[in-house]
Amino acid sequence: MRNVILDCDPGHDDAISIIIAASGVSDLNILGITTVAGNVEVEKNTINTLKICELLGLDVPVVQGARRPLVKESEIAPEIHGETGMDGPVLPEPQIGVTEGHAVDFIIEQVMSSGEPVTLVPTGPLTNIAMALIKEPRIIENIDEIVLMGGGTFGNWTPAAEFNIFVDAEAARVVYESSVPVTMFGLDVTHQVIATDDIIERVSKIDNKIAVFVKELLIFFGETYKNHFGFNGGPIHDACTTMYLLKPELFETEYLNVTVETKGEYSYGMTVIDTLSVTGREPNTNVALGVDQEAFWTLFEEVLKSFDGGR
Amino acid sequence: MRNVILDCDPGHDDAISIIIAASGVSDLNILGITTVAGNVEVEKNTINTLKICELLGLDVPVVQGARRPLVKESEIAPEIHGETGMDGPVLPEPQIGVTEGHAVDFIIEQVMSSGEPVTLVPTGPLTNIAMALIKEPRIIENIDEIVLMGGGTFGNWTPAAEFNIFVDAEAARVVYESSVPVTMFGLDVTHQVIATDDIIERVSKIDNKIAVFVKELLIFFGETYKNHFGFNGGPIHDACTTMYLLKPELFETEYLNVTVETKGEYSYGMTVIDTLSVTGREPNTNVALGVDQEAFWTLFEEVLKSFDGGR
Amino acid sequence: MRNVILDCDPGHDDAISIIIAASGVSDLNILGITTVAGNVEVEKNTINTLKICELLGLDVPVVQGARRPLVKESEIAPEIHGETGMDGPVLPEPQIGVTEGHAVDFIIEQVMSSGEPVTLVPTGPLTNIAMALIKEPRIIENIDEIVLMGGGTFGNWTPAAEFNIFVDAEAARVVYESSVPVTMFGLDVTHQVIATDDIIERVSKIDNKIAVFVKELLIFFGETYKNHFGFNGGPIHDACTTMYLLKPELFETEYLNVTVETKGEYSYGMTVIDTLSVTGREPNTNVALGVDQEAFWTLFEEVLKSFDGGR
Amino acid sequence: MRNVILDCDPGHDDAISIIIAASGVSDLNILGITTVAGNVEVEKNTINTLKICELLGLDVPVVQGARRPLVKESEIAPEIHGETGMDGPVLPEPQIGVTEGHAVDFIIEQVMSSGEPVTLVPTGPLTNIAMALIKEPRIIENIDEIVLMGGGTFGNWTPAAEFNIFVDAEAARVVYESSVPVTMFGLDVTHQVIATDDIIERVSKIDNKIAVFVKELLIFFGETYKNHFGFNGGPIHDACTTMYLLKPELFETEYLNVTVETKGEYSYGMTVIDTLSVTGREPNTNVALGVDQEAFWTLFEEVLKSFDGGR
Repeated sequence: MRNVILDCDPGHDDAISIIIAASGVSDLNILGITTVAGNVEVEKNTINTLKICELLGLDVPVVQGARRPLVKESEIAPEIHGETGMDGPVLPEPQIGVTEGHAVDFIIEQVMSSGEPVTLVPTGPLTNIAMALIKEPRIIENIDEIVLMGGGTFGNWTPAAEFNIFVDAEAARVVYESSVPVTMFGLDVTHQVIATDDIIERVSKIDNKIAVFVKELLIFFGETYKNHFGFNGGPIHDACTTMYLLKPELFETEYLNVTVETKGEYSYGMTVIDTLSVTGREPNTNVALGVDQEAFWTLFEEVLKSFDGGR
Repeated sequence: MRNVILDCDPGHDDAISIIIAASGVSDLNILGITTVAGNVEVEKNTINTLKICELLGLDVPVVQGARRPLVKESEIAPEIHGETGMDGPVLPEPQIGVTEGHAVDFIIEQVMSSGEPVTLVPTGPLTNIAMALIKEPRIIENIDEIVLMGGGTFGNWTPAAEFNIFVDAEAARVVYESSVPVTMFGLDVTHQVIATDDIIERVSKIDNKIAVFVKELLIFFGETYKNHFGFNGGPIHDACTTMYLLKPELFETEYLNVTVETKGEYSYGMTVIDTLSVTGREPNTNVALGVDQEAFWTLFEEVLKSFDGGR
Repeated sequence: MRNVILDCDPGHDDAISIIIAASGVSDLNILGITTVAGNVEVEKNTINTLKICELLGLDVPVVQGARRPLVKESEIAPEIHGETGMDGPVLPEPQIGVTEGHAVDFIIEQVMSSGEPVTLVPTGPLTNIAMALIKEPRIIENIDEIVLMGGGTFGNWTPAAEFNIFVDAEAARVVYESSVPVTMFGLDVTHQVIATDDIIERVSKIDNKIAVFVKELLIFFGETYKNHFGFNGGPIHDACTTMYLLKPELFETEYLNVTVETKGEYSYGMTVIDTLSVTGREPNTNVALGVDQEAFWTLFEEVLKSFDGGR
Repeated sequence: MRNVILDCDPGHDDAISIIIAASGVSDLNILGITTVAGNVEVEKNTINTLKICELLGLDVPVVQGARRPLVKESEIAPEIHGETGMDGPVLPEPQIGVTEGHAVDFIIEQVMSSGEPVTLVPTGPLTNIAMALIKEPRIIENIDEIVLMGGGTFGNWTPAAEFNIFVDAEAARVVYESSVPVTMFGLDVTHQVIATDDIIERVSKIDNKIAVFVKELLIFFGETYKNHFGFNGGPIHDACTTMYLLKPELFETEYLNVTVETKGEYSYGMTVIDTLSVTGREPNTNVALGVDQEAFWTLFEEVLKSFDGGR
């Protein structure tokens, strides 16, 4: 059992990422879920997280985190995820409550007190993770890996920057410079896992409430991506992180140097990935660049089917 | 009684700043002293703070804070303050202990739970203050003023940047952009309060253990400044903050716009002060530019004399 | 007949670009060839240009230009093009001489005095073009297009920057901000025209001295790319510009906004291409992204065959 | 006789600088005057230069130069110098004409063909000088000094940047990095030579047409500075350069390292002067920091009196 903390801003694809981690085919030990300002304000992300946990019957601490980035102004993306941050399916107001405290402290406490190493799985801006590293640098020793969604060799929020990194590039810099092993799912690979109509069709054949919920997420998210970017479906970016934790061999990765641009005029928030090894800087990141799409969606079906008969 | 939290990295002039706040002529209510990495490593700054408190018989919480800046690499200045961070006078190892917890949380808790507004008095890098503002933005409403030593229209660590701001310019940016009223004691004014041989002579005529300690600090610090910068004594930079809290009319201030340069190649960490009002940006900082030197040193003598007969 | 000035730093692929423009299937009117510091020092690039002209029997002015970039330090790439800048084939020392004057003035004079519009075809750093635009901004009105090799959505000299743009990003900025229509052949498309062993085989079947010269260029350049980048041949980057002028329909282009990063820490010299139209900035560049490879190499063979029987 | 080229954008203080160079107490050999876009558009600066030459009976080539900065957008300052760039005194339209060619080429030709070293005296943005250095780097060997007005430890156009440097910081960078000896008159010293009412009174006692012209310049310029900056008169910035060439001992200078900030967000165009020698970078500039004011104005009177009886 691998200990994970999911740090997220659900978010359609964050929601799916949580579902994967909590599914019957997962052997992840979810120590808790922390939230961060990102797709929408942190309070909305927290409510969405609670709703998902309640739907899943997932009993883990949900702890709210950073309301704003480290240095720059806040920026949110309601045009992609809707006003609630998870528009589309309608879930009841959650009965379970948020856990007291701040995500930063939760992360520090869990990592410092865990006998076994902890894997952090951020799928939103990296503010909480960076603050934990700044506040208690000694956590580095007991984090075995940071498996994150963010960045890429190209961007979606600007031509150079992906949303999660753009929102808090300084935090991303802290993470990439921390010496903790990073495995990175950027747009290069996440744009390869698009939930096209075919995929939605496959999901709709699975008959349990979680699969229905996922189908509705995919439909809303797909519409957004069609209208906003001209895509033929929504890429379930964040889901790559937990799919990787379930089955690493789905993905091709390369061990490369990655730095984060925080000074640029037109490239702020870019993850500069040394694909051709021209910088002379040491590799520091396991960069996912390819995915076995058929195997990915097949496992995805298994994940959803594992909720048959409730959980 | 004004509630203050002293956030510092003692440091010779930090030490003097604490002494002023704790003196018999001060009406400040010290809620606690927090430490930060700056002149030297945070652990050394904490030990120095405990030593000073013990010497003063000052019974307030001392809480350790950030070990590193928000985004950039750590940088320290042992060439100015010596290996211990407070070389010169020798104090016994402290018997009193540090208070549990992290400076960031202490600041948040004190500000959030205090009925009366709290004044923050940072005399080191602004890491703790920035992290508190990031972690709990609502503290803004109950901080009446941040009275800080840092910056200036010129620098001492680079031609453009003063040490405290240079060490963590991103943190400084967070503070200056926070909307909290800032009163700033930069090099323009702190270089006007140099403890020359005349001043040391005046201090040496005061006969109590605190005055003796201060004299020894001034002698060491003065030597450093003579050797390193060619000054005729050490400027007691940080002391301006608490002297101002005791007697604001000692200083001339102007209400000006100040921004912090975090992108520059040769000017990282500069406080850009709109002295000539050419930017069109709204004033946000009370910038101290002048001081009544004679009144300053006279009050300084009173501060030291107030320790006659112990305390 | 389209009036062109070829501005270059031969360079293997620059040489091929000149050959294409001078071939029997070209209807370009070459007003002159100007040289610039780039792959190697400008003097070497000038000698290489003279050698090529002599080999081709091409009687046009060859004018030497900038020895250094606008603002930054010089940078050259002998590891890619060899010590002479055009290692591989051995040509005799040129008997024809360079034309007096400076490339910047030649460009200005030609454009200002030409009744018909002039097309500039830079395949090296953009220093000469930028200086001409700065020195005489009125040339803008009589330049119908700048067809350049440079940039891309990824880099080869750094992860973000292609060599030509990296060497003088400020010059590139001047060009892209000049309002002159730009058609851009960046790495996205030039890495699609790699002279693999198959292509070299096809070239080697053409039996004239120009084809032999080209074959030798391709062999040397291919070795460099195999060793340095792990490619299966050398991409004949610069040749795209003149191939496009011969037959535009070989290429797919999109009209997009392009800006040049001159401030970044890790992304200096990046051409930031708004592929997803997320910036809201107006398109200013015709960006070549695709090529009909078979049609390209077929025309390339025709180009080389056109030299059968001498010229 | 020292050979000088005055490169300027008159401009009230530029005009005075020319007058000083052309006065009876000057032994400067003016090779020519070149103009540059700066205070206003280059065409206006050229006309103003011709008017001044005609007034002075000064028969030297006047050559127009750069219409725009190297890299950034043009910026002018009509609010300081009026619509004509030299508002106040009214001079007749000039009968003499501009010399053919471009300032950049004039500078290169004069320097390359002069047996004796040439001193360049730029009192506007450094575009022409930088372009000459870029176009023909070999001029470096025959320029003995660049005596310029620009920069300072503080700014007037932004808090960090003086106008001349701000308008073309990239050009300034080229100049400061060129290895040519620079003597720099920045705001630190030019704000010490303010033409107060007393000075204007002294000037008004001199009874020749040049002195009357200068008086009118000072009155207009003084009004601008009173209204715009709250000064008690206009600082005759540019005049320091030629006064220095007449009598260097008027000024105190220090040999210091100076770099130019071209990347900063709030400090673009700052001359970063290493006054405290903290950077470890080698000195490259003779920085004027002080002036003997009484001697300065006394010599200034002599300059103006030298025009008694015409010239």
